[in-house]
This record gives sequence, structure tokens and C-alpha cells, in this order.
Amino acid sequence: MPSHSEMEAAVHAYVRGFATGDAELIIGLFADDAVIEDPLGTPPMVGGQAVRAFYTRIMADGGARLELLGPVRTAASSAAFPFASFLTRDGVETRIDVIDVWDFDEAGKIAHMRAYWGPENVTDL
Amino acid sequence: MPSHSEMEAAVHAYVRGFATGDAELIIGLFADDAVIEDPLGTPPMVGGQAVRAFYTRIMADGGARLELLGPVRTAASSAAFPFASFLTRDGVETRIDVIDVWDFDEAGKIAHMRAYWGPENVTDL
Repeated sequence: MPSHSEMEAAVHAYVRGFATGDAELIIGLFADDAVIEDPLGTPPMVGGQAVRAFYTRIMADGGARLELLGPVRTAASSAAFPFASFLTRDGVETRIDVIDVWDFDEAGKIAHMRAYWGPENVTDL
Repeated sequence: MPSHSEMEAAVHAYVRGFATGDAELIIGLFADDAVIEDPLGTPPMVGGQAVRAFYTRIMADGGARLELLGPVRTAASSAAFPFASFLTRDGVETRIDVIDVWDFDEAGKIAHMRAYWGPENVTDL
């Protein structure tokens, strides 16, 4: 089971990956059979190919800047953290307030990501 | 499926219930077959009796003050929110940084609560 520090480091690497446009850093955090639900309620993206396609597309679209908005909470082999994502949508600078919950596998890779946000969490700046 | 506003109102009622020491207000937010994992990784508390026992005990211990630390995020029929819980443990004023994730049922009651926090999220004040 990954430690608090290991899970926290993964979150920080994720934020750094967005800051530097390093899709490979981000993709490397995920297990080969990872599942992403972003946001929860949309069709899950399953497996390494889907993870790669997802982040490659985000980076190609100009990426996003992630700002952590508090400490990373960890329980058992899961981490949860609040952040704001700043990105341009249709030419408009936009802020999305999100909470991510990541379940890690034994190897310390993200096995399941659930992103909690909806239309009411999106603000045009 | 509950709306964003309904789920947000439930979170605000929960915070208010702690502020006023109103255990009944809090217990009334939960479904009869609710499951609470607080923190995730500890044995789940299952059903109305367990929910009642849990919050009655917390209130008897002096309760806690909850401070929301950002907007309530909602996706599908779930809500996630960051907060700090201020309480006295063994005579020491303590802050715990938590993220709660609540899954709601069709009736708008909390069916499943998962609280994300661990020892590294506890600060003696």
C-alpha cells in the first residue's frame, strides 16, 4: 500500500506535469489498467491507451494550469485533493473547481481516478 | 437524481448541524440503509442505527466545528467538498483536514459517505 508521502508526491507530480506540459510524466502515474471518470457520470476511460489519448488531447488543446487548494488527504490507499483548473475553452479563460479522488494499486500507480465537478463548478473569468 | 443545489444544501445543513449541536438534523440527511466510512479504510458503519450511534457519540464528545474550505463539487448524484474539522481530542484542540464524498440516493438522502483523511491530516493547535 502506498504511503501518504508517495500518494502526495504523485499529486504534486501531476500538477507539475500540467505546469510543464509533460504528458509523459502524467501518463506514467497511471496503472496499465487504470480507469478515469472525469467527471464522474461520464463514460469511463479504461486502460493505458485511453489514459494516453485523454492527456495527449488535453495537452494538444493547450493544457491547463492546476492550482492545489489545500492539503492532499489520504486514507487507506486513496488520495483526495481540491484544486482549480484554469484553461481556455472556446477562447474564454475558464476556472473549474474540482476534487479528484485517486485509488492507488499496490505498485503505487493510479488505478482509478474519479473527478468531481459539474457545470455549477465552472466559472468564466 | 438530486440537483446540485439540493446536494449543496445537504452539505450546508450538515455544517449547520455541527454548529448548533443538532444531531437530528444531521441524522435526517442519511438514508435508512446508509453506509459511512470515516475515514475510508475503517470498518463501514451500516444502517440508520449505526449512523445515529455515530453522530450521537460525536455530539456527546463535545462535537466539532466544521469549516468549509471551498465550493461543493457535484457530479452525477455525488458531492465532494473540502473542510476542516476543529475538535478537542484528549484535551488538545485539533484540526483535521478532510474531504468528504457523498453518494446520494434517488430521494436525495446520503446513501454512502466516504471521508478521506489520515494521521498526516491531523494537526494539534
